[in-house]
Amino acid sequence: MRTWNVAVVGSTGAVGTEFLKLLETREFPIKTLRLLASERSAGKSVDFHGRTYKVETLTANSFEDVDIAFFSAGGSRSKEFAPHAVAAGALVIDNSSAYRMDPSTPLVIPEINPEDIARHSGIIANPNCSTIIMLMAVAPLRKLGAIKRVVVSTYQAASGAGAQAMNELIAQTADALHDRPLVPQVFPYPIAFNLFSHNTRIDESGYNEEERKMILETRKILHDTHFRVSATCVRVPVLRAHSESINVEFSEGGRPTLEQIREVYAETPGVVVVDDRVANHFPMPIEASGTDDVLIGRLRYDDSCENAVDMFVCGDQILKGAALNGLQIAEFWMRSAQ
Amino acid sequence: MRTWNVAVVGSTGAVGTEFLKLLETREFPIKTLRLLASERSAGKSVDFHGRTYKVETLTANSFEDVDIAFFSAGGSRSKEFAPHAVAAGALVIDNSSAYRMDPSTPLVIPEINPEDIARHSGIIANPNCSTIIMLMAVAPLRKLGAIKRVVVSTYQAASGAGAQAMNELIAQTADALHDRPLVPQVFPYPIAFNLFSHNTRIDESGYNEEERKMILETRKILHDTHFRVSATCVRVPVLRAHSESINVEFSEGGRPTLEQIREVYAETPGVVVVDDRVANHFPMPIEASGTDDVLIGRLRYDDSCENAVDMFVCGDQILKGAALNGLQIAEFWMRSAQ
Repeated sequence: MRTWNVAVVGSTGAVGTEFLKLLETREFPIKTLRLLASERSAGKSVDFHGRTYKVETLTANSFEDVDIAFFSAGGSRSKEFAPHAVAAGALVIDNSSAYRMDPSTPLVIPEINPEDIARHSGIIANPNCSTIIMLMAVAPLRKLGAIKRVVVSTYQAASGAGAQAMNELIAQTADALHDRPLVPQVFPYPIAFNLFSHNTRIDESGYNEEERKMILETRKILHDTHFRVSATCVRVPVLRAHSESINVEFSEGGRPTLEQIREVYAETPGVVVVDDRVANHFPMPIEASGTDDVLIGRLRYDDSCENAVDMFVCGDQILKGAALNGLQIAEFWMRSAQ
Repeated sequence: MRTWNVAVVGSTGAVGTEFLKLLETREFPIKTLRLLASERSAGKSVDFHGRTYKVETLTANSFEDVDIAFFSAGGSRSKEFAPHAVAAGALVIDNSSAYRMDPSTPLVIPEINPEDIARHSGIIANPNCSTIIMLMAVAPLRKLGAIKRVVVSTYQAASGAGAQAMNELIAQTADALHDRPLVPQVFPYPIAFNLFSHNTRIDESGYNEEERKMILETRKILHDTHFRVSATCVRVPVLRAHSESINVEFSEGGRPTLEQIREVYAETPGVVVVDDRVANHFPMPIEASGTDDVLIGRLRYDDSCENAVDMFVCGDQILKGAALNGLQIAEFWMRSAQ
């Protein structure tokens, strides 16, 4: 079997750490492994497959002989260093938003548009976590009928803002329990026992950047420039799984039956229906956390519209929402590159 | 000024406690005050306006000479004891769901359908908290155009399940922070750093009871048997303010401008627009908690439908969602009874 020289950029962050775990557990065929991070984290030791690796400082020269570079160190680092990795001959799988809407960069969820992987020119972008989790539930339904419109409200975990945000949720919650003052540092508002609209810039339409990503990335992934989504993105005091309440409206007269929807999900990889009405057991962050699959439940006909269905979905933000999807892209690419 | 003999049933619960605070701060004209609760809480002492009151056991004979009885002790106690209060000549304002859909019982949000108060036959019902908070934002928009359909997803605080549920959230969160096992007692699933579909019974349509309340109570309050709502109700680890992501679709061609919507809210009592796009400041539970007004923000045109608008709303579940609305019903009734 062919083996590969792999680099992980941002290897000490929430997503980078998960990348390393997945490279181990999925037995990725690694020849050499290079761990890269900003100067702040360089020098740290990381165990991998029983060996200890030193984290090196990310520079323009970090990518010699690298075949695959996983980037999860934020958009500005991807913008600066991904071109160097490409110039050195590496395939970059970028978890940041830097290249997602670049026309020459494929944006891929392997279960949905794996064919786009082959069109890369050095970089393949990993979609936004909320987009991935929504589309794992929504995209398969297109087999059953044309979708007119999706209305989605998210319940997003702290992990989407990185390891520091998760630490802030934990430390601030302890402060709240001890009646100590809450001092937000990563988030703009207290996250302990609170929730707030996703703190990205609001454009003139009133949508924030996270919501725009869900709208625009969906169109690119589905190759449908007219696909209609309205998203409301909300941060909640949950650690690492995103939830989404999704209303899918089909074109006039085109609503499939719930049975058809269940059948489609049963044959779709990466999703599991958790929908026990009697036991009141539906998707929850504590069950989605650490799970590869996106959980789908609360499947029902929309009482307000004869063409729509409602559902509630949970997925691990760090796994399918980030590292796992990136690794799956690499696995698909490897198969075609061999 | 006329004064009244008041009874508070369930006076030691989350809503009952807030009722007593409001009776104080709003200087309700009380002649005598009787605090009632189940045997478990009877005998407790409660301070009110500088005097100490003993909580008495609720019985069929508790309502002699009572003019107004606020019930917030659960549906079964309302079913059993409200008729005795009515027989004794009291007006019952019932916070439970027991009488809400009873045709002879008005279901009232004073800002929306105060005229229904006069139609009572002894009992006036306080609507479900999620219904009240949604309608405070949605009902005023009917002045601007016919509403075709509302799609709402809730982020509901623990307080909706009572004081014990709030205590469970706090204690269980401490357990989670100390890696102790989480043992759900009030809720069916862990609520610390988790969220789940509202744990009421699911009917054959797939909606749970909380969602059905939002659908059916809305029709009764708005006197519109065809009003269309699809609701997804979710419990989140927040203490006492409910949030709701609301999509309002108007009839074809009937969408008002955001300016018109802001104007309507500016002249609507009980709501405040919190919608600062530059500062990314929108309604949040920590700011809605302890506040009488329902906060409305994230106002924007729906990118997926030319007839719809999106918004995000927060309201204190115990105040406007329960005790405050009940007290406002009493205040309206008093004015007409004098």
